Amino acid sequence: MSLKVAFQGVHGAYSEQAIRQHFGDDVQTVPCPLLGDVFDAIHRQRVDLAVLPVENALAGAVSQAYELLMDSDLLIQAEIILHVHHSLLAPAGTTFQDVKRVQSHPQALAQCESYLRRHNFEAVPKYDTAGSARELAGTLEQGTAAIASKLAGELYGLTALDHDIEDVKFNFTRFFVLGHDAPERGEYNKTSLVFATRNRPSALYDCLGEFASRGLNLTKIESRPRRNRPWEPVFFLDFEGYWQDAACQEVLAKLLFRASFVKMLGSYPAVRNDSVGI
Amino acid sequence: MSLKVAFQGVHGAYSEQAIRQHFGDDVQTVPCPLLGDVFDAIHRQRVDLAVLPVENALAGAVSQAYELLMDSDLLIQAEIILHVHHSLLAPAGTTFQDVKRVQSHPQALAQCESYLRRHNFEAVPKYDTAGSARELAGTLEQGTAAIASKLAGELYGLTALDHDIEDVKFNFTRFFVLGHDAPERGEYNKTSLVFATRNRPSALYDCLGEFASRGLNLTKIESRPRRNRPWEPVFFLDFEGYWQDAACQEVLAKLLFRASFVKMLGSYPAVRNDSVGI
Repeated sequence: MSLKVAFQGVHGAYSEQAIRQHFGDDVQTVPCPLLGDVFDAIHRQRVDLAVLPVENALAGAVSQAYELLMDSDLLIQAEIILHVHHSLLAPAGTTFQDVKRVQSHPQALAQCESYLRRHNFEAVPKYDTAGSARELAGTLEQGTAAIASKLAGELYGLTALDHDIEDVKFNFTRFFVLGHDAPERGEYNKTSLVFATRNRPSALYDCLGEFASRGLNLTKIESRPRRNRPWEPVFFLDFEGYWQDAACQEVLAKLLFRASFVKMLGSYPAVRNDSVGI
Repeated sequence: MSLKVAFQGVHGAYSEQAIRQHFGDDVQTVPCPLLGDVFDAIHRQRVDLAVLPVENALAGAVSQAYELLMDSDLLIQAEIILHVHHSLLAPAGTTFQDVKRVQSHPQALAQCESYLRRHNFEAVPKYDTAGSARELAGTLEQGTAAIASKLAGELYGLTALDHDIEDVKFNFTRFFVLGHDAPERGEYNKTSLVFATRNRPSALYDCLGEFASRGLNLTKIESRPRRNRPWEPVFFLDFEGYWQDAACQEVLAKLLFRASFVKMLGSYPAVRNDSVGI
């Protein structure tokens, strides 16, 4: 029986593309309207795993994803890095010259802003990228195209009038695969956690010193306001290493004494920076 | 002659509300369609200052703002913290019971998701909050309401059917005021900069040590992928202090020797955490 993996959006979403890239074709993808529904699906065991976007090289951290991660007891199983390419999709018979309006999620429209302006296309905001393609496949509206993934075009029988129409080519999105159990060690691993410092000057510096003194390389750090105490930050931190390594176990124990809380998000097989083709 | 201050959006946008909160009524607010146009307006001296959102307690850093800041030579003049409250706005004569559809920017709709669900309102995505109110004031469409600021309701002659409809009450947005010259010292100051570390283990830790050893308190840190070299991060950092303080001058000089580059974003009068009413 194939794995069931939940994602936010409709079929053809970039999250579904990330699932295909990571797991291949032998998984059952389960679309959920909202990010909260994705967590619901996995908490209630209706799926085995979930995939959620946590960072976009252009659009910054996906904030709600981190809030939901904070509230759940799921563990990160793996990371996926997807190179996001936008296609211009239209109903069969529509030529490039026919296009007047282009519909998509505001962020995708923004990522293709120069392209849209160059061709004098009117931008029409919709809820999501793949959803705008699905809607167009239903209405077959003349003179309208959608911006979404190539996958969405194939799924909804739309013709790709153009490919790779994003203004900036370095458009990568990072995803976490979430599940219930701790994953095995991979070839290259990262550990992700969130912590708050005790309210003391240089508290963050002292915490980071535990990593530096053991040669544990940080790959991400981000302070975020605490929800009910904004501007009293929590820190999201990723570092290279697997929790069973001696240095990792030491740093985790030390951190627990220095921080006012630590929450483990996972220790998982990760993607090397230099392996994503850039 | 009153100051001209540019912002992204149409009149009634939350950025305009931030301008009013900071400068009072004696400024001329200049709406710009895109964030890039805001930078254009100030670079071409068509306005004196610009205001841009850089952090939302719920939605995370506003990524494009930081990209544009990186590319410009403007300096931060001040920070503004706005407590964002959403209103439900409708044409005169529409009662709460008449409302079927609610239109706004997808993020505002998401921030009121439970509210919309509770009242069985259909959510309709639009480009921005104030723009969705202005559009409604034009069409006067029956059964439709918009989510936007109280200010937008007043400007476009819509009735506020409900106030403070956001699901989570801790909804603060941080703005920077941008200008050409370095501002005077305020009562309480922050300095913002962006830097990249030399490619060495513990490089970030060593840089942060320069702050910690001088008792300079960090109020924000965020690693972000470099645009043309994703996952080779740059660090956005805010700390308490004014650039003319001896400790600040020392830390800046030291940082220049440790980092592969440092860009000053500004040293400016800031808002104390405990003064925003939370």
